[in-house]
Amino acid sequence: MRSPASTRVRSALPKGQRTREGILRAAVDLASVEGLEGLTIGRLADELKMSKSGLFAHFGSKEELQLATVQMARQIFVEYVVRPALAESSGMPRLWSLCDRWLSHVEKKVFAGGCFFTAASFEFDSRPGAVRKAIVEAMQGWLDTLTRAVEDAKKVGHIKADINAAQFVLEIYSMAVGAHWAFQLLDQKKSLLTARETILDRISSLATRHCPPLKIAGL
Amino acid sequence: MRSPASTRVRSALPKGQRTREGILRAAVDLASVEGLEGLTIGRLADELKMSKSGLFAHFGSKEELQLATVQMARQIFVEYVVRPALAESSGMPRLWSLCDRWLSHVEKKVFAGGCFFTAASFEFDSRPGAVRKAIVEAMQGWLDTLTRAVEDAKKVGHIKADINAAQFVLEIYSMAVGAHWAFQLLDQKKSLLTARETILDRISSLATRHCPPLKIAGL
Repeated sequence: MRSPASTRVRSALPKGQRTREGILRAAVDLASVEGLEGLTIGRLADELKMSKSGLFAHFGSKEELQLATVQMARQIFVEYVVRPALAESSGMPRLWSLCDRWLSHVEKKVFAGGCFFTAASFEFDSRPGAVRKAIVEAMQGWLDTLTRAVEDAKKVGHIKADINAAQFVLEIYSMAVGAHWAFQLLDQKKSLLTARETILDRISSLATRHCPPLKIAGL
Repeated sequence: MRSPASTRVRSALPKGQRTREGILRAAVDLASVEGLEGLTIGRLADELKMSKSGLFAHFGSKEELQLATVQMARQIFVEYVVRPALAESSGMPRLWSLCDRWLSHVEKKVFAGGCFFTAASFEFDSRPGAVRKAIVEAMQGWLDTLTRAVEDAKKVGHIKADINAAQFVLEIYSMAVGAHWAFQLLDQKKSLLTARETILDRISSLATRHCPPLKIAGL
């Protein structure tokens, strides 16, 4: 499997760290396609054509590898979705950019197998333990980021003040996940564009006259 | 694992078929918790305290077992969600009953690990093959059932005639999946009730004055 994320190893890091990062980016892509539970040291060693003992030097157990993979997926998501969106001005431009880039990261296959976190959520929702906990933390962090963006949009007067931010965020989240599903499973290639339009319409319907114009940009 | 579906073996069937059905109901619950890819003949034999050779007599390979498990999950979903809803009168009562019972089946843990098909969708969306094909067929069948219910509601004049049925169904689907996710992963116990109210509000907002009153019933 030629993986998008695994090719983006940062050359500015020291060699040991670069190797670890390269391994983890490949692990993220592999897990996004085959599932996080199937990510064993043996399976990853095959994929990378490395020895199992070489991998054990980096990760002492399957669970340690899974946890490090979740953290790397979070880092990639922050790099591609969150950080550029936070550079937008506070309020609706930031909220909209978070949504727009979120849908784009699936379309652009930032993770080889689609949305890493949605797949991991449904894979681990009934499996108690440290990996489930790490996924819950990551998802809760993402919901908090979206909720803060809605609250900021209220503060700067871009959106009506009586909106229930948590409920509105779950509504946006649901529209995006439904579109990811139709895109990945049913090959409905237009579903992400349709979701982008639907979310933009929905956000705009709650906007005040102080809200600047919003447009679909993508990555 | 004490599983809800595995205890509902129909005694009216001949013994061989009853055994196969009992095995498959346990397989559905196991897969809904641990994933369909982790469902091997060895793992299921452990779970049922049966010999692997005994299971091989029923299913010749892992893939055959996975495919039979998807079909059994479809059968259970039809029994609990689709068939009782189709007994409701055509139009909005049927559409609403499909949605209401769909959310209820997650709440009532008809599958031990939540929504079997949503988990299977995200697990197999990047894995080409017969199992992915069976999941796509099941999901397409469910979307078609919902779409037909919307079209019937248009025909009998319960809902505005200019509604785009496929788009409306994806909207409903997204709201339900988002609620399943919050319920299963984030333990937001009220999320299914909130989704039920949101979907009922959304359906009602499109209803004509000919639509009979709709109410939340559950299973």
